[in-house]
Amino acid sequence: MYFTSDNAVGAAPEILNAIIAANEDALPSYGADPMMQDVEKRIAQIFETDVRVFLVSTGTAANALSLASLSPPWGAVFCHRYAHIEVDECGAPEFFGGGLKLVLLDGKDGKIQPDALEYALKETGAGGVHQVQPAVLSITNVTEAGALYRAEEISTLAALAHDAGCAVHLDGTRFANALVSSNASPADMSWRAGVDVLCLGATKNGALAAEAVIFFDPKRQADRIAQFEYRRKRGGHLISKGRMLSAQMAAYFKDDLWLSLARHSNLAATRLADGLRKIEGVEIENSVDANMLFVHLPVAVHKRLQQEGARYYLEPPSQSDEGDGKTVRVRFVTSFSTTDDAIDSFLEIASKA
Amino acid sequence: MYFTSDNAVGAAPEILNAIIAANEDALPSYGADPMMQDVEKRIAQIFETDVRVFLVSTGTAANALSLASLSPPWGAVFCHRYAHIEVDECGAPEFFGGGLKLVLLDGKDGKIQPDALEYALKETGAGGVHQVQPAVLSITNVTEAGALYRAEEISTLAALAHDAGCAVHLDGTRFANALVSSNASPADMSWRAGVDVLCLGATKNGALAAEAVIFFDPKRQADRIAQFEYRRKRGGHLISKGRMLSAQMAAYFKDDLWLSLARHSNLAATRLADGLRKIEGVEIENSVDANMLFVHLPVAVHKRLQQEGARYYLEPPSQSDEGDGKTVRVRFVTSFSTTDDAIDSFLEIASKA
Amino acid sequence: MYFTSDNAVGAAPEILNAIIAANEDALPSYGADPMMQDVEKRIAQIFETDVRVFLVSTGTAANALSLASLSPPWGAVFCHRYAHIEVDECGAPEFFGGGLKLVLLDGKDGKIQPDALEYALKETGAGGVHQVQPAVLSITNVTEAGALYRAEEISTLAALAHDAGCAVHLDGTRFANALVSSNASPADMSWRAGVDVLCLGATKNGALAAEAVIFFDPKRQADRIAQFEYRRKRGGHLISKGRMLSAQMAAYFKDDLWLSLARHSNLAATRLADGLRKIEGVEIENSVDANMLFVHLPVAVHKRLQQEGARYYLEPPSQSDEGDGKTVRVRFVTSFSTTDDAIDSFLEIASKA
Amino acid sequence: MYFTSDNAVGAAPEILNAIIAANEDALPSYGADPMMQDVEKRIAQIFETDVRVFLVSTGTAANALSLASLSPPWGAVFCHRYAHIEVDECGAPEFFGGGLKLVLLDGKDGKIQPDALEYALKETGAGGVHQVQPAVLSITNVTEAGALYRAEEISTLAALAHDAGCAVHLDGTRFANALVSSNASPADMSWRAGVDVLCLGATKNGALAAEAVIFFDPKRQADRIAQFEYRRKRGGHLISKGRMLSAQMAAYFKDDLWLSLARHSNLAATRLADGLRKIEGVEIENSVDANMLFVHLPVAVHKRLQQEGARYYLEPPSQSDEGDGKTVRVRFVTSFSTTDDAIDSFLEIASKA
Repeated sequence: MYFTSDNAVGAAPEILNAIIAANEDALPSYGADPMMQDVEKRIAQIFETDVRVFLVSTGTAANALSLASLSPPWGAVFCHRYAHIEVDECGAPEFFGGGLKLVLLDGKDGKIQPDALEYALKETGAGGVHQVQPAVLSITNVTEAGALYRAEEISTLAALAHDAGCAVHLDGTRFANALVSSNASPADMSWRAGVDVLCLGATKNGALAAEAVIFFDPKRQADRIAQFEYRRKRGGHLISKGRMLSAQMAAYFKDDLWLSLARHSNLAATRLADGLRKIEGVEIENSVDANMLFVHLPVAVHKRLQQEGARYYLEPPSQSDEGDGKTVRVRFVTSFSTTDDAIDSFLEIASKA
Repeated sequence: MYFTSDNAVGAAPEILNAIIAANEDALPSYGADPMMQDVEKRIAQIFETDVRVFLVSTGTAANALSLASLSPPWGAVFCHRYAHIEVDECGAPEFFGGGLKLVLLDGKDGKIQPDALEYALKETGAGGVHQVQPAVLSITNVTEAGALYRAEEISTLAALAHDAGCAVHLDGTRFANALVSSNASPADMSWRAGVDVLCLGATKNGALAAEAVIFFDPKRQADRIAQFEYRRKRGGHLISKGRMLSAQMAAYFKDDLWLSLARHSNLAATRLADGLRKIEGVEIENSVDANMLFVHLPVAVHKRLQQEGARYYLEPPSQSDEGDGKTVRVRFVTSFSTTDDAIDSFLEIASKA
Repeated sequence: MYFTSDNAVGAAPEILNAIIAANEDALPSYGADPMMQDVEKRIAQIFETDVRVFLVSTGTAANALSLASLSPPWGAVFCHRYAHIEVDECGAPEFFGGGLKLVLLDGKDGKIQPDALEYALKETGAGGVHQVQPAVLSITNVTEAGALYRAEEISTLAALAHDAGCAVHLDGTRFANALVSSNASPADMSWRAGVDVLCLGATKNGALAAEAVIFFDPKRQADRIAQFEYRRKRGGHLISKGRMLSAQMAAYFKDDLWLSLARHSNLAATRLADGLRKIEGVEIENSVDANMLFVHLPVAVHKRLQQEGARYYLEPPSQSDEGDGKTVRVRFVTSFSTTDDAIDSFLEIASKA
Repeated sequence: MYFTSDNAVGAAPEILNAIIAANEDALPSYGADPMMQDVEKRIAQIFETDVRVFLVSTGTAANALSLASLSPPWGAVFCHRYAHIEVDECGAPEFFGGGLKLVLLDGKDGKIQPDALEYALKETGAGGVHQVQPAVLSITNVTEAGALYRAEEISTLAALAHDAGCAVHLDGTRFANALVSSNASPADMSWRAGVDVLCLGATKNGALAAEAVIFFDPKRQADRIAQFEYRRKRGGHLISKGRMLSAQMAAYFKDDLWLSLARHSNLAATRLADGLRKIEGVEIENSVDANMLFVHLPVAVHKRLQQEGARYYLEPPSQSDEGDGKTVRVRFVTSFSTTDDAIDSFLEIASKA
C-alpha cells in the first residue's frame, strides 16, 4: 500500500533484465556505447523526426541541464506555480542556469492559463536591461496536479512562447502517462505542438534511474546541444559506465514497454479513484487524468490508513496529520507495479474506518 | 521638468564639494582611508549602536552583495512582488547569491502583508531537502509604490522572519525619505525593529554614486561580514580610490544633510500632488508618503506634457503612450533638486491640456 | 584487451546481484531506505570511527559536491597539476564551488611535494581581500600517475594544510587499490592521517555507478554536512530510487569484496608490467604501485596492438598515433575483471610486433 | 613619498573639473547621457575604427565582465601566472564567468612566451568533453611586472589564439603607459594586433574611478556585446548617474590628457630608477619600460625609508620587513601626480641610509 510516489518501487523486470544483459562486455564508456546509438535511433523513430538524445540519472538533472542550455543567466523561465522545477528541485534550475529566474504562472490543475502566459511575456523584460528577459516556457505533462495537457493546449502555449522568442521545454517525467491518457502520438504531444526540448522520464515509469533529454530539430539547436554536453559533464552527470543508462532506455522503448507500464499505472489510479468515490466523506479533487489523485480524507480515515501501513504524502507537506481538523489533503500516486490487491486492501481499510 | 527618477540629476553641492576637498593627498586605497573610518563612526552615532559599514557605488550592488552574505544558494529570500530586487536588478540577487530564489509576496502599496509572510514562511522548505529554505526577509522602505512602513510594521514582519530563522534585510534606497516622512529615529526604523542589514542609499538623495551597507550587531554577524568583504572585492565593487565613496558619505551625514535633502524631496512631491489633484481627470493612486506619485493621466494631458519636455516613466513600461485609450498610468519622482518653478511649470501645462 | 580505463566493463557479479535482490519491495526513496543506514554503519565499522555518508553516481559529482561544501567561492583548493579535479572534470569543482580556484602544485608521480604545498599555502591569500584564500588541500590516492601515497605522506601534507586552516579532501577513486597496495588500514589511510572528507570510489572497482562521500568527525563538520545535502539535491544528484546506490555499496563492502577486487586489479597490472618489461623498446615510466601503467611503446608495437583490437588511451590525448616518431606514450589500466588470458594475448601481440 | 600604487592619489584636476562641470542638468541616466555617446565617438576616432564602449568603475569589473562575455563557463582563459586577473581579483573572473578556468602561462617580465601559449592551446581541451575548452587569451600591457609588449609581440600571441578559436582580451589598466612607452598608435597596439576587447584603464592614470571596455568590430561581436550589457547590470555595475563615468572619460581623452599623464608617470619612474641605480646595494630587477620598478632594497635602507614615511608594497606580500635577511624585494609605482620633489626626497633618504 505504497502510494507515496511512482519512485517507491524498483525497476520493471524487463528493465532490470536489460541491465543484467548489458553487463558483460567491455564497452566504450561515457555514452559512446552502441546501445546509446540505438536508443537515439529508436527515439527518432518513435517521434518520427530527427533528434539528439542525452541520458541522465535524475529528472532534476534533466530539467536543470536542459533549461540552462535554453536560457542565459538573465533569462526568465515561465512555469506554473506548482511546477516541479519550482517546488521540488531545491533551486536546481537557478543553480545550473547561473541564477536565472523562474516566473510563476497560475492556472487550474497545474496547467498554465494562456492569458497568464501572454501577460507575463508582455511584461517581463519590458524595462530593458534592468530586467530579466523572456527565455523559456516550461510546461509539465502530466502536470504536478495530475492533469493532462492535450496537444492543442500545448500548441497554443508554445505558439505564444515562440512569438516572444522563447524556447519551449517540456518536463515529461510522466510523459508516457500523458500519452496513454490522451491517445495522442509522441510527435503530436511534443515537437509538432512546438516543444523544443523534451525531458522524457523513465524512472517514475519503471526504470531504475534513467531520463532522456531529447532535442528536436538538432541542426537548429546545435548550439544548445553543444552546451548541453559540457554542462552535463561539468554537472557530474556523465555516467562513466554509460550502459547503465542506455540499457534501461533500450528496454524502456522495446515493444512499447513504456506505454504498457503507463497504462497499468493509469488504470490503477482509476481503480483507486472509483473505490474512493464510494467512501463517505472522501473527496477527490482532480479529474484523475493519469496516475495521481489529490484527495481530502477524513482525519479518522487517514489515521487508520497510517496505522495499517498505508503510505502516501500530505499535500502540502506543511500540514499536520490533523489537517484542518476534519480532513487532510493527501496525494496518492500509483505506479507500473501497483497491484489490484494492494488497492483493494487499501480501500477496504478506508471504507471500514 | 524631470520626474523620471531621483537619479536624473547630479550631486548636491555639499557632496560635490566633499569630493573636491578629498582629492588632494595620497591616501591608503581600497577603503582604508581615514574618512571611511569616520563614516563608520558617524553612522554608529546616528544609529546609536555598533555597526560595520561598507560602501559601494550602486544600489543593486548593495542589495545583491548583502543578500548573498545572508542567504545560502539554496535560500529563499522573501520580498514583495514589486520589490526592486525582483523587478529592476536583472537577476542580480540570483547571480550574486549563487542561484538563490526570490519568493514573492503580495500586499497593498508595495508593503508585505504579515499574513502573506507568515504563510510563505510556513510553506517554504517544508518539503525538506527538495526545497529551498527560508533565509531572508527583504523589505523596502520607502516601498517601490511610494509608501511608508512605520517602525511597528517593520517589527511585526521582522519578528515573524526571525522566528523562522531568517535574517532581515532592508533596502533603504529611500531610507532618508522614510525617516523624514515618519519622524522616527534611524535606530527605531532599523535595528530596533529587527533589521540585520540596512542598505542605506545616498545616490537617489543627493550623492553622485554611493550606498552604505550597514551591518548591525557586528559581533553576531561576524561571518556574514567576512563574507561580504570577499564578495565585494570579487564582485568588482571594491573601489580603489575609496575616498570617492567615503567623501560623499561623510558629507551626506554632515549637519543632517541627508535629512534636509529628503525633506525637500518629499515636500516637492506634496506640492506636485496638491497641484495634480486640482486637475480634472487626473487621479493619484497612492497616498504620497514620500517622493513618489503614481498617477493616471488623461492621454491628452500626457501627450501635451511630453511635447513640452516633461520627462517621467510609464508604469508599467510595457504600456504605449495611448495607455488604455483614456488614461496612462505614470510615475513621478521628485528629488532634492526639484524646484518649485519646475513643478509649477509642469502643473500649468497639465492644467491647460 | 581493454586497458582504456577501469570503467570499460560492467559491474562485478556480486554487485549486480545486489541490485537485483534489492529490486522487489516498495522502499522509502531519496536515500531513506534501510540499506543506506546499513551502509553508513558498515563504513563506520570499517573506518573505526563515526561517519556521515552520502552516495552519488559519479566521481565528478562526489568530488565537486564535497569541495563545494569545504570551500567558499573565494577559496583556493590546492591540488596536483595532474589531479582529476583539474584535468578531467571539465571545471566541475569551479562550477559547484561558485567559482573557486584550483591552485596547482607540482610533484613526481602525481604526488604533491610537501614544500610545494608549504610555499603555496604561504603565498596564497597573503594579499588579503584581493586574493582567494586557502581553503582545501585535495589529494588523490592512488594518484592519476598510478602512484601510492603512504599514510605518513598524507599525514605530512594534511598537517601543513590544517595548520593553514584548510580542510583535507581525498579523491579516493582508487582508494581500495591504494589500501591493498600499502597494506594500511582504511582509518590509517584517511582520518588518522588527517583526511576530513573521503570520496571513496566504487565504480572503477566493480560497481556500476556508485561513489561514497564520507565525512569523518561528523559533529565537527555538521555545517559542511548540512550544506552537502542541499548541494546534492540541487545538483540533481539525489537519486530517487536510492536503493540503486545503497545496494551496490552494501555489496561492495560485504566480505571485503572491495579489497578482493582491487587486489585482482593490482595483480593484473603487475602481470602486465612484468610482461612488458621483457619486450624490447618498451619502457614503463612508473613504479606500478596499483593498477595503472604509463608506458612508452614503439610506434610499430602500438600500431600492431591497435590493429589487433587492443584498446588504451594515448597520454596526453593531444598526441597522434605517431607519437614523437619513435615511441608513443600510453596509459594502461587494469580492472577487477581483467583476465590473465587477455593480458597474455596482449603481450604476445606486443612481443611479436 | 607614496609609491604604493598609481591609485593612491585622487583625480587629475582636468578630470575633477569635468565631474563638476557635468553636475548641473537633469540627464538621462544609466549611460544614456549625451556625453557617453561623445565618449564612444571619441574612442572610435582615437582607435581609427568602429567600436562599442561601456564604462564601469573598477578594473576588476571591466576584466571580469568582459571575460565572462568572451568565454563559456567551461572555457579556459589563458593568462600569465602573474596576471592581475589571476593574482589580484579574488576570483572575479571565475565568479562572473560561471566557474571558468584560468590556465596559467609562464614568461619573463610578466609576458607570455609564445611557445608556452602554443603548448597550452594544444593540450587544453584535447580530452574532449572531459576538459575545459580554449576560449580566451588575456594579456596585460603594461604587464604586472612593469614590462611592455610591443605591437608585434601582441600580434604573434593573438594569431596563435585566433587560430585556436580563442578571443583576445587585453587588460589595459596601464594602456596609456604602454602607448607612450612604445610610441605606437592605439590601433596598432590593440585591434590591428588582434585584440578583440580592450579594457582601457583610466583610474590608475588620473581618473577617480573609470574604466572603458572597448569592443572592436562590434558587428562581429554583437552577441558578446548584448551579453555584456546584461552582465553589467546584473553585476551591479550600471551606474545610475552615468555622467559620473562619462564625464571622467570625456576629460581623459580631451587634448590627449591620457597620454600626457602617462608620460609624466613614466618619466617619474625613470627619474626614480636613475637615482636608485646610484645607491649602493640597491638592485633594480626590471628594465623600467613604464611606471613600475621592482627593486631589491637593503633591509637597512628599507627600514629607514619606512621610518621617514615612504610608502610602497613588499612584493610578494608574504615577505616580512626583514626580507631574506639582506634585502627586501619591493615594488615602486609612480603616477601622474608624482613630483620630482617627492622622488628627490625619497632618493636622499635612501642614499643616506
